[in-house]
Amino acid sequence: MRDFLPADKARREHVLSVIRRTFREHGFDEIETPVVEDSDRLHAGLGGDNEKLAFAVMKRSLEKDDLQRAADSGDYLELADLGLRFDLTVPLARFYASHRAELPKVFRSIQIAPVWRAERPQKGRFRQFVQCDIDIIGEAGSLAEVELITATAAALEALGFAGSNACTIRINDRRILRRIVAALGIDDGSYERALITIDKEDKIGVPGVVAELLELGLGDAATMTPVLESLTTLVDDGWGLLESGNQAPDWLDADAYRDLLAIRAAVGGGVRLVFSPNLVRGMGYYTGAIFEIAHPDLSYSLGGGGRYDGMIGRFLGTDVPATGISLGFERLVDLVRLPEDAAGDAVVLIYDPEVEPARLAALKAEVIATGARTTLAERPRNPKTLIDQLAASGWTRFAFVTGATMTLADLELKEISATDGAQ
Amino acid sequence: MRDFLPADKARREHVLSVIRRTFREHGFDEIETPVVEDSDRLHAGLGGDNEKLAFAVMKRSLEKDDLQRAADSGDYLELADLGLRFDLTVPLARFYASHRAELPKVFRSIQIAPVWRAERPQKGRFRQFVQCDIDIIGEAGSLAEVELITATAAALEALGFAGSNACTIRINDRRILRRIVAALGIDDGSYERALITIDKEDKIGVPGVVAELLELGLGDAATMTPVLESLTTLVDDGWGLLESGNQAPDWLDADAYRDLLAIRAAVGGGVRLVFSPNLVRGMGYYTGAIFEIAHPDLSYSLGGGGRYDGMIGRFLGTDVPATGISLGFERLVDLVRLPEDAAGDAVVLIYDPEVEPARLAALKAEVIATGARTTLAERPRNPKTLIDQLAASGWTRFAFVTGATMTLADLELKEISATDGAQ
Repeated sequence: MRDFLPADKARREHVLSVIRRTFREHGFDEIETPVVEDSDRLHAGLGGDNEKLAFAVMKRSLEKDDLQRAADSGDYLELADLGLRFDLTVPLARFYASHRAELPKVFRSIQIAPVWRAERPQKGRFRQFVQCDIDIIGEAGSLAEVELITATAAALEALGFAGSNACTIRINDRRILRRIVAALGIDDGSYERALITIDKEDKIGVPGVVAELLELGLGDAATMTPVLESLTTLVDDGWGLLESGNQAPDWLDADAYRDLLAIRAAVGGGVRLVFSPNLVRGMGYYTGAIFEIAHPDLSYSLGGGGRYDGMIGRFLGTDVPATGISLGFERLVDLVRLPEDAAGDAVVLIYDPEVEPARLAALKAEVIATGARTTLAERPRNPKTLIDQLAASGWTRFAFVTGATMTLADLELKEISATDGAQ
Repeated sequence: MRDFLPADKARREHVLSVIRRTFREHGFDEIETPVVEDSDRLHAGLGGDNEKLAFAVMKRSLEKDDLQRAADSGDYLELADLGLRFDLTVPLARFYASHRAELPKVFRSIQIAPVWRAERPQKGRFRQFVQCDIDIIGEAGSLAEVELITATAAALEALGFAGSNACTIRINDRRILRRIVAALGIDDGSYERALITIDKEDKIGVPGVVAELLELGLGDAATMTPVLESLTTLVDDGWGLLESGNQAPDWLDADAYRDLLAIRAAVGGGVRLVFSPNLVRGMGYYTGAIFEIAHPDLSYSLGGGGRYDGMIGRFLGTDVPATGISLGFERLVDLVRLPEDAAGDAVVLIYDPEVEPARLAALKAEVIATGARTTLAERPRNPKTLIDQLAASGWTRFAFVTGATMTLADLELKEISATDGAQ
């Protein structure tokens, strides 16, 4: 887990505010849930492998007896009643089940908040990180996917991912994946297991996938290889499969594919939406269209999501359709540059030690009143080093305060140049 | 712990953004620390009674042996290595000690973040709540207090606490309190204990305080009563004590009081800063000026703080002066009204079910491009109820989308009146 210093924090807040503003423009409403959820709810089987990574919060005032019972059973989670959330989807499902009566029939939610996973420390993996999720609950039709993709594309564009730096949104559908697994000659009962292996195709290639599936006792090479190769040739380039003259592959679920074509048409040409039949997404709860955000220069994704129509029903008792996209905030922050003028006019008053606090406070207030962000710094022996530091922290102008009677009119404000902090 | 629905969350984000903007204008820089800290650090004695309220996070992969050892010792905190922070001051001290070399010599920090306390559930007490702290580290002089008070007063004014609704900032100094305890005839060794009782004066009166101190075996009534009564008569009205012709009370530490007068002069007449010699503030780590934010209509405070020069040294090894103010965000949120125009132009397109997603997506994009926040809602049998709900959620205009070929020019946008949602 990390501390964020002022420059990092400013960049994070900038990215958050752009994302928040864009999602709100697109009609989504922000909600917030507590960072802890009941243990039982976190461990109800909806979080996949992430459940194992949940930090557990201990019950308060545990007695010796409680500790002895846990020692006897060996189950330390008995001592915990709460846990830090590992995603924002389980809390959203719980939230929706609790507050459905107070929410619109189709609820478009924004959640921007940290989640926690007890990962082993490694480069690029954090134990506390921010997720930015939008979800649409209560809309079964593909209008929901269209709104999610449009809002996501707008947020990415607002963050500067445009032109040659634009992101691609990859799309597939779980119904197509189910047909693919059938075409591979694999039983429905091994569907989820087979997907885990198929998902590795970009790393281990078609022969690797075939070998691993055979090792699992699934399918035979003669059937599987051509199917997997036909997927691979279509990655990010599969929109023409139903055009006249084309022979659609066996594994193409035509209903699902027509939905994807309709989504593509509604989203419009401004968004780089590509069909990727090998796209899997790990979570078992997905039921329909699934998404992943890719950037041409990056090997990892910048986010993803999908439709999870069965999940809310696990909390509510009645099924409610739902679909969502999660932006990979931590990865985005690393890629986004603060606009040049993000700091605005930012003035430092460098004062001689003999100037009274009352005079400094009055001058500072006067400069703030002009609309400038303003701070104070005592004049060191060598102001050059100080001014260089200030430039690096985003301060744009400075003035020396030398006299006890100086007023705003007496201040000689100078631009700070990042390369030359000299007086 | 609470869920926040869209209207609540919007009000919270509005208040946060006003506070954040004002503090930044005043030269403070925002930082962020992880929500968990090492258990040892949380329980190092700097958090006062709040330490007992820390939620403990369990170690991962505990074995039977670990559980048995805890059962034998009865100390369940052995099983925890992390805890949720109970305030933002302990994390700030740890942050400053870790990053001092990267920070300016005088560091003005903003922290806006949740903290957790395992309080018994009761009205107005939350187990997760947001604190908004500003602190100045590295400035020993009263310029720091002046900047804190000025920024706090500006934030309160920006939130609408002005004119007859303005807040008062009460100020006192721990050096004065030390003299008061001496004047009561109480040993320095019982100083902190005596303060706990003196702090109750507004609830139990001077006789109550005297009785409780006597019960503790401290002081005698004949000495204590007149001192406590002299404090009480000066509450919020003690700026003239050193004026010529006045006999300053015995317990007035003249140095501390002169510092307070200088702070008052520097802050200026625009801030209602009052001297309250009975102001205590609970935390044992305060060393100099202490503050509390009061509102004329409220019996509880809206925040407070003080100077804590010894605390950073506990983490760093060398003493560094520090002072801070914490705004009571949850209480402020309840009092602040969203400005009428907070939602801006917010349009709902109420569509007939037969209109295609592609058309709806195109229309929505066109309305967003005009600068309006935009959402979609399927037309119910009786749109009046829907429109009333939308008005209550801050939507300002609506149009019906009835035809498959409608364009932006065909939309008849109507104002939504909160009292009359009829077509």
